[in-house]
Amino acid sequence: MTTSTNAANDAKAALEEGAALTPRYDANGLITAVVTDARDNEVLMLAHMNAQALKLTLDTGIAHYWSRSRNSLWKKGETSGNLQTVDEIRIDCDQDAVVLKVRVSGADATCHTGRKSCFYRKIVTGNSGSPRLEADSEPLFDPATVYTDH
Amino acid sequence: MTTSTNAANDAKAALEEGAALTPRYDANGLITAVVTDARDNEVLMLAHMNAQALKLTLDTGIAHYWSRSRNSLWKKGETSGNLQTVDEIRIDCDQDAVVLKVRVSGADATCHTGRKSCFYRKIVTGNSGSPRLEADSEPLFDPATVYTDH
Repeated sequence: MTTSTNAANDAKAALEEGAALTPRYDANGLITAVVTDARDNEVLMLAHMNAQALKLTLDTGIAHYWSRSRNSLWKKGETSGNLQTVDEIRIDCDQDAVVLKVRVSGADATCHTGRKSCFYRKIVTGNSGSPRLEADSEPLFDPATVYTDH
Repeated sequence: MTTSTNAANDAKAALEEGAALTPRYDANGLITAVVTDARDNEVLMLAHMNAQALKLTLDTGIAHYWSRSRNSLWKKGETSGNLQTVDEIRIDCDQDAVVLKVRVSGADATCHTGRKSCFYRKIVTGNSGSPRLEADSEPLFDPATVYTDH
C-alpha cells in the first residue's frame, strides 16, 4: 500500500470512527439536517446548517439553520413561536448530515403550511397505476395569520 | 394582486396542497431521501434519488438511489444483502425531499461501516466545552469481508 493510500485510509478512519467533530460542509458551506420529533422519531423537516448555525444550536440548545431561500441565518420558530429545543444531535458516517431530535414549542407545528411535519403527504399508487399524493394531516395553525410579512 | 403573482400563488398551492407528484429535482437532477426504520422511525441514512431511482423504487418496492460518489444507479444492499423493502414514501411541502420507511434485510445494517444506522455518533459537549463525538452502536457485519471490491 502506498503512503498516499495509507494517508487516505487514515483520514477516512478519523472521519468515520473518530471522536473529532469535523463537518464536511458542501460548496455552499452547508450540511443537511434531518429534524425529528424527540418523542417518537417522526421526521418533521429537512433543513441546512452552516458552521454558524451548528455552533449556535450547540451553544443555545435551540435549533438554528441556514435559510437557502432567504440566504440568512434562521432561528426556526422565531416568527411562529414553534421553536425547537434540541435533545440530541447525531452526525453520520461521513459527517455531511446531522439528525436533530427536538421538542417543538407553540402549536407543535414545524411546517410553514401549519402542519406538524413537512412530510404530510404519502405517495400512493392510484387505480391508473400512476403515483399521486394523499395528505393525512391537517394544519395546526393558520399560516396566513402567522406569517403576515409574506 | 398581479396576474403573475396569482400564477405564482397557484403554482405554490399545487405544489404544496395538490395530489400531483411533481418532484423538484435540483441542478443535478436529484432529490434528498431520508431513510427511516419502518418499525420505530429511527433515521438510518440520508441518500439521493433521481427520477429513475424514484420510479424503480415505486415500481419494485425495493429502495433504489443515485450514488453521487459512483455516479450511478444504486440498488441499496445489492452487495451486502441489506436490501430495503419500502413500506411507505412521503414527500415534503415543496417536493424536494422524501422520507422512506423501510424494512432492512440481511444483517439489518444500513451503514457501510456495518452499523444499523449511519448516525451512530452523537455530538456531546466535553468538559472542555468543545463538542466531540461519541459512538453508541457497534457494527453488525464486517465491511472488510462484505465489500471485497473496495
